[in-house]
Amino acid sequence: MVPFSLSLHARDGDARAGVFSTPHGPIPTPAFAPVGTRATVKSVTPAQLNDIGASLLLANTYHLYLRPGDELIAEMGKLHTFMGWDGPILTDSGGFQVWSLGEINTVDDDGVTFQSHLDGSYHRFTPEQSIAIQQNLGADIIMCFDELADADDREYMRRALQRTHRWAERCRAAWDNPAEQALFGIVQGGIFDDLRRESAAALVAMDFPGYAVGGLSVGESKADMHRVLDTTLPLLPADKPRYLMGVGTLPDLVNGVMRGVDLFDCVLPTRVARHGQALTRLGRVNMRNAEHARSREPLDTACDCYACQHFTRGYIRHLIQAGEMLASTLLSIHNLRMLIRLTEDMRAAIRAGTFSDLAASILEPFGANQTL
Amino acid sequence: MVPFSLSLHARDGDARAGVFSTPHGPIPTPAFAPVGTRATVKSVTPAQLNDIGASLLLANTYHLYLRPGDELIAEMGKLHTFMGWDGPILTDSGGFQVWSLGEINTVDDDGVTFQSHLDGSYHRFTPEQSIAIQQNLGADIIMCFDELADADDREYMRRALQRTHRWAERCRAAWDNPAEQALFGIVQGGIFDDLRRESAAALVAMDFPGYAVGGLSVGESKADMHRVLDTTLPLLPADKPRYLMGVGTLPDLVNGVMRGVDLFDCVLPTRVARHGQALTRLGRVNMRNAEHARSREPLDTACDCYACQHFTRGYIRHLIQAGEMLASTLLSIHNLRMLIRLTEDMRAAIRAGTFSDLAASILEPFGANQTL
Repeated sequence: MVPFSLSLHARDGDARAGVFSTPHGPIPTPAFAPVGTRATVKSVTPAQLNDIGASLLLANTYHLYLRPGDELIAEMGKLHTFMGWDGPILTDSGGFQVWSLGEINTVDDDGVTFQSHLDGSYHRFTPEQSIAIQQNLGADIIMCFDELADADDREYMRRALQRTHRWAERCRAAWDNPAEQALFGIVQGGIFDDLRRESAAALVAMDFPGYAVGGLSVGESKADMHRVLDTTLPLLPADKPRYLMGVGTLPDLVNGVMRGVDLFDCVLPTRVARHGQALTRLGRVNMRNAEHARSREPLDTACDCYACQHFTRGYIRHLIQAGEMLASTLLSIHNLRMLIRLTEDMRAAIRAGTFSDLAASILEPFGANQTL
Repeated sequence: MVPFSLSLHARDGDARAGVFSTPHGPIPTPAFAPVGTRATVKSVTPAQLNDIGASLLLANTYHLYLRPGDELIAEMGKLHTFMGWDGPILTDSGGFQVWSLGEINTVDDDGVTFQSHLDGSYHRFTPEQSIAIQQNLGADIIMCFDELADADDREYMRRALQRTHRWAERCRAAWDNPAEQALFGIVQGGIFDDLRRESAAALVAMDFPGYAVGGLSVGESKADMHRVLDTTLPLLPADKPRYLMGVGTLPDLVNGVMRGVDLFDCVLPTRVARHGQALTRLGRVNMRNAEHARSREPLDTACDCYACQHFTRGYIRHLIQAGEMLASTLLSIHNLRMLIRLTEDMRAAIRAGTFSDLAASILEPFGANQTL
């Protein structure tokens, strides 16, 4: 397989099943990427990530630039060697942190000046700097440096979008190793269909090896999210992977795949695990509740993960009550496996032509508003 | 193999290599037991404990009685099922907590009244109660309820010792399932040779399936610890296992085996792991130190553990600096494997008749006072 080629094996409606090849191996799609912000998926080892079937991990440029530093990671053999994960890795560009840590950042047309959340020191990211850092990190998939904007400020959104497109051109120009790293463009435009169309057209004209849809799952309604996907995805080239950033939940994954998304990432499964919550096909379950104290059931009776094969709800509740780290590990393993198994099930259903039945059965318990 | 029989395969000086059989499988000796205070070895899964070669785990009666409660654990299928570990388990009696949480406990001839460290509620342990709790927990090896005493108060030590011997008789009388659980007597007597001799004689007369040496590694000098072992171990029956409680470090294990100890347990490897320290054959290394930031070496070049096979010191230092849980997991796996591999190496050396050479090479870097 040629690196960074997408082979589509089957379609079912707009849903697609295929394989995206990278220098560190194939990513069967649809795929869900666990998030390893600081070069570790919290409380889970790479061996455990292998066991749960992870085919792609995400790491964060902003966090790793600040600590331990991208130059140190380059010196240590880049990210795969550093974190002991030899499968595919994707790094974001730092653009999301520009937005989510906005109170300590200032944006101008050339880039972003920001204060470290660790020590208050000043730093500057430009598109060229983001690409240089991502080249030091050495992930298989790297992202254009972009700017999110508040979903309800249309005028700011339009200006930010134009800046994002100019930055995408600068990222593309700075990107000089297309055989080692694939640079994805990020479609922005908030919940405004015309801006999304404009953004998709601008980025597709730049001919990236893949495209992301950014700026969703940041507070907008599910109806808005779905409409933006319906507007945007048909404008992206069918032979390139489509990545829905920062999403999501079980129903979000189904709704994304249904509309043609290939890749997802989200901190949700590991974050809620650290708060004692298990993802199930019926929604989130708070394992802290006293009702689980004497339960000999696993977190999910249909799950094949290590946690569900070996431990009861009663034991996991005890670990949470006692403040034991193993609770986070077991719940993270389970929650990640739930989403990854869902992508495996969707992939099989697309190939069998039964995706709409599977989608209906997954979405049914979540009701009309499809929140988890 | 008949449960609770000790088969001795080789001797080298006073060092012994053998197998102690239990209903949940054999324990090759000498053996080091990781401590799972609250029915979990902190930050390590049972699968990882299997990988590092753990053959025996310890759990704490006092902690599990308070939370989640021994009756709940019995209802959930006892400790092996509850914590997902089907190998041998040992529970202590709660006696150590009587001593270490002494400011909230009062001891009388019948038992101990204590306040929970969790909620201040009042509870009472008697020898019979300790055995009943340990039967609910269902470990393979259970311990007599005993009383430690301050090492320098000889008069109190003598009175406590007599009480401990009466309690041992009461524990033995309450113990009614010798095919499922082996009850070990605990020799006490602090650093006083005559009291240790008196204690060994009293307990051996009661004919237990195994014997522990308690009250060591609580602040006495290494010379005192070694002298007490030299005094006590020859008085214990050669065909029964000998367990040195709460010990220890690499040199402690060598010094114990050299004198005829078969079993050890200690929180040290997992506790120092959570403080960022790695055990090595040259002593403890603080992985927080900046000198490790760019090190591509493993924690220990000779180690076969998962952490040393896959990760560098530089990466582990990054995890510690970033406050990532994976640091505790990787350091715990390494530190436990260091001690378990040492027991494996000692076992092989005893069988090969080369134990004294191995002991000398392990002890040499630690110098005369042999502290880690």
